[in-house]
Amino acid sequence: MNEATEERSWTTRRDKKAKKILQVSQLAVDKILPSEKMVEALEMLISPGDRVVLEGDNQKQASFLSHVLTQVDPQKVYKLHMIMSSISRPEHLDIFEYGIAEKIDFAYAGPQSLRVAQMLEDRKLKMGEIHTYLELFGRLFIDLIPNVALIAADQADVYGNLYTGANTEETPTIVEATAFKDGIVIAQVNELVDELPRVDIPGSWIDFVVVADKPYQLEPLFTRDPRHITDLQVLMAMMTIRGVYERHQVQSLNHGIGYNTAAIELLLPTYGESLGLKGKICKHWALNPHPTLIPAIESGWVESIHCFGGEVGMEQYVAARPDVFFTGRDGSLRSNRAMSQVAGQYAVDLFVGSTLQMDRDGNSSTVTSGRLAGFGGAPNMGHDPRGRRHSTPAWLDMRTSNDELARGRKLVVQMVETFQKGNEPVFVESMDAVKVGLDANLATAPMMIYGDDVTHVVTEEGIAYLYKSDSVEERRQALSAVAGVTPIGLQHDTKQTAALREKGLIAFPEDLGVNRTEAKRSLLAAKSVEEIVDWSKALYNPPASFRSW
Amino acid sequence: MNEATEERSWTTRRDKKAKKILQVSQLAVDKILPSEKMVEALEMLISPGDRVVLEGDNQKQASFLSHVLTQVDPQKVYKLHMIMSSISRPEHLDIFEYGIAEKIDFAYAGPQSLRVAQMLEDRKLKMGEIHTYLELFGRLFIDLIPNVALIAADQADVYGNLYTGANTEETPTIVEATAFKDGIVIAQVNELVDELPRVDIPGSWIDFVVVADKPYQLEPLFTRDPRHITDLQVLMAMMTIRGVYERHQVQSLNHGIGYNTAAIELLLPTYGESLGLKGKICKHWALNPHPTLIPAIESGWVESIHCFGGEVGMEQYVAARPDVFFTGRDGSLRSNRAMSQVAGQYAVDLFVGSTLQMDRDGNSSTVTSGRLAGFGGAPNMGHDPRGRRHSTPAWLDMRTSNDELARGRKLVVQMVETFQKGNEPVFVESMDAVKVGLDANLATAPMMIYGDDVTHVVTEEGIAYLYKSDSVEERRQALSAVAGVTPIGLQHDTKQTAALREKGLIAFPEDLGVNRTEAKRSLLAAKSVEEIVDWSKALYNPPASFRSW
Repeated sequence: MNEATEERSWTTRRDKKAKKILQVSQLAVDKILPSEKMVEALEMLISPGDRVVLEGDNQKQASFLSHVLTQVDPQKVYKLHMIMSSISRPEHLDIFEYGIAEKIDFAYAGPQSLRVAQMLEDRKLKMGEIHTYLELFGRLFIDLIPNVALIAADQADVYGNLYTGANTEETPTIVEATAFKDGIVIAQVNELVDELPRVDIPGSWIDFVVVADKPYQLEPLFTRDPRHITDLQVLMAMMTIRGVYERHQVQSLNHGIGYNTAAIELLLPTYGESLGLKGKICKHWALNPHPTLIPAIESGWVESIHCFGGEVGMEQYVAARPDVFFTGRDGSLRSNRAMSQVAGQYAVDLFVGSTLQMDRDGNSSTVTSGRLAGFGGAPNMGHDPRGRRHSTPAWLDMRTSNDELARGRKLVVQMVETFQKGNEPVFVESMDAVKVGLDANLATAPMMIYGDDVTHVVTEEGIAYLYKSDSVEERRQALSAVAGVTPIGLQHDTKQTAALREKGLIAFPEDLGVNRTEAKRSLLAAKSVEEIVDWSKALYNPPASFRSW
Repeated sequence: MNEATEERSWTTRRDKKAKKILQVSQLAVDKILPSEKMVEALEMLISPGDRVVLEGDNQKQASFLSHVLTQVDPQKVYKLHMIMSSISRPEHLDIFEYGIAEKIDFAYAGPQSLRVAQMLEDRKLKMGEIHTYLELFGRLFIDLIPNVALIAADQADVYGNLYTGANTEETPTIVEATAFKDGIVIAQVNELVDELPRVDIPGSWIDFVVVADKPYQLEPLFTRDPRHITDLQVLMAMMTIRGVYERHQVQSLNHGIGYNTAAIELLLPTYGESLGLKGKICKHWALNPHPTLIPAIESGWVESIHCFGGEVGMEQYVAARPDVFFTGRDGSLRSNRAMSQVAGQYAVDLFVGSTLQMDRDGNSSTVTSGRLAGFGGAPNMGHDPRGRRHSTPAWLDMRTSNDELARGRKLVVQMVETFQKGNEPVFVESMDAVKVGLDANLATAPMMIYGDDVTHVVTEEGIAYLYKSDSVEERRQALSAVAGVTPIGLQHDTKQTAALREKGLIAFPEDLGVNRTEAKRSLLAAKSVEEIVDWSKALYNPPASFRSW
């Protein structure tokens, strides 16, 4: 215990915050900052080099605050280390062009993936790491503790209590990491009210509130129009229902975005019903409120759904179905990305994903040339969580040994057509992601799902039951057997087909009792958005872009 | 869409809740229930067969509510499906004896593990599943959605807003899963106040509050008296610092409970300092506020600590060190088990555990004959999280191949002396857990940490670098080389020792530059609780049972 120890301050973060709050309080009335003073306020509240979380979710965007941030003086605010779940808006990258921000840690960059890659090449952006959502949230409490959080909510009261309504997403997680480490939390809200419908985040966690010039940006990312589902996708969905869900008794699951999984959802009340599977499979879900799940819900298939976020147009429907969805006292959806990711990782039987490229070992990535898209939540759910200790019938059904320590595993299913649109093969010798990783100087190749975590691959040709394979060679054979006329499919030694079928390593539609000629769009419970609205008893209110009648 | 669909109610949970709340409101003043009416209230609020979460954490116990629950009439309240993180108190099992509860899902049963096993054998208890904390939390949102939550907090106001103070633990997670699915949340509090120091849980999530007859039970589980640390543990700690932390540049980590890890914590400011490692290793932590970490904190080793829960006696010290700990506006600790488990799984370089038994493949378990202890949080942190996509130097250092898709892995270290107290070997041919699992009719053997997730095993003999092994055989050789004169150690072919050392698969103290003769208790920064108090400048206030001066 030397002298230096004696003199050290242990409240540097708190003192720095107190000083800033005092300075900004001249602009504010209690916690409320006027929108026209926000540039000035941010210049006072954010120091050079600060770690700033900008929300930046999969759906909800703190769009007003991101715009304000582009307007601060780069002589005053610079070298920011940005943390964003999702790089979604042009401003999210403009701040790097303007010299305000320097480094980025993120999880997903879908709409901006091309520009991220370009800016990295041009050295306008210093790359931190690419994460899944959950590991990024974890780091907010470990080595990426924020100095400032810029977040979005529906409503606030004068005490700073927040109502996040149907689109809670990551707001509570970001706020907790910031507020409880003497960081500064600034919330943009759509409106200020006297009384909130419910409190999602306590006012004592929030420093400042600003009413935005317009409501925060919100995208309908999980709406799929059934008109675009093809017969081939219906075939693959039928195979998945019979060959995976029924066979392994899958009771809890996650579906991502896509027409393949939308087809499954729309086949449950028709094809699934005809197989007598209601009440036996697909009862508990971790997913956003997909409109295509409405017919299955209305038909009594679905017991519960926990949501990562909301979905535009589903507000009224969700509020009318509280037995199924998690809702608050005000009646609206309560979503929570962190807890839904935890549930989607550890508490469900199955994850279904899709991909743009897959190699002969079943490794897959949606990263393609020149695009650094990130991972989002898929890898977190699309792997075998080795920390899991509880069992379910489906999980146990994955055991392939009689060893006394044998355990089950999570079902990780990839559904892909062998060719993408534009006739690009999905099954390839080498994925673009490997080159992208090298070009971007990443420490590891940006893989979405690793092959050794994949239990099943479903294509229009059939299903490969990869979890049953005894060797790398057998695994490759099974995969190539369903890879069609792609470079990987053409490597298949057809003499092995019978043996692989015999051993149950692959199954074709006829092996599963699926009749190819029955695989028609007419089997879908709803063939258009209009029919989904009908199923919902007009409670679903699709966004304008999905209205065509 | 048939007639049955038309007639279905979608608000059964909400309606049931409204009816119960109305009935109980005759007993309550606003949200406040009188403590002497609680038996009656629980009989109204809990229906037969309900899923009830009873808090039941690692440290904090809703002790008043658990006592009340034993007093309800089993003619009125029966067949409850209990969900508890931790089975800690006699009442937690009494309710099964009394015919009130029937089935249990849990994560940990330390103090009650013997009785759990006995009641299972006597068929007085129906076993659900044994979980890690995080997967149990996940299931609360999927297929174990609660009807009722019985929780504990420090203070409430009349609106039901809760202050959980330093021991937040799982309260927010349990409440969220219950409140947002029309379940009933009842909080016992130590006191009712006009104004809370801070709001940890909004009142709109809470249905009823009752002031308990005495403060909730809270155990000092993470306090280790340095007087009990042996020279052998000092030796193992020195090896771990040099051979694991320094070698792999471990910057973020979790330590569990135990004298081995306490020794590491107390060597950082002495031995670690002499190696020039300050600022290079052990900067970010996910762990409870261990008193034995105080000297390292005071010496400037520790940048941040996020906590699962609190620790009795550490309140004032934590409040005085907000640069290090997560604290609220009131100054006290903010813990959160769910988020700290997420961080401990995904965002740290290393986990260190210990065990009672380990087999030749490195599998380990703390379950021993007749005791069904459960897993707690260890398996969640003690595995390689395959959903992780970001890299750190330590993580990358685990790569053993040049494959273009090679990735790093988490460091999972087991520190064990080759023999337990009482001369029982730790390294054994077959673990008791296998037999316990069979006897209890569990679907899989209750393993704590699986061998293929373990990267390093440290014993008093040396370190086995298991992650470097090319084959099962080589792995077994490396492990047996450090297993002393146990049944597994005696299988070691000493002719292989030189080759294993050469290849870096094992290291003895001399290979690590650790001098056995220097491994003395005198190296510890604090040799007693009293000295820890001195380091803390009297801010640490140890519980009476740890005061001996």
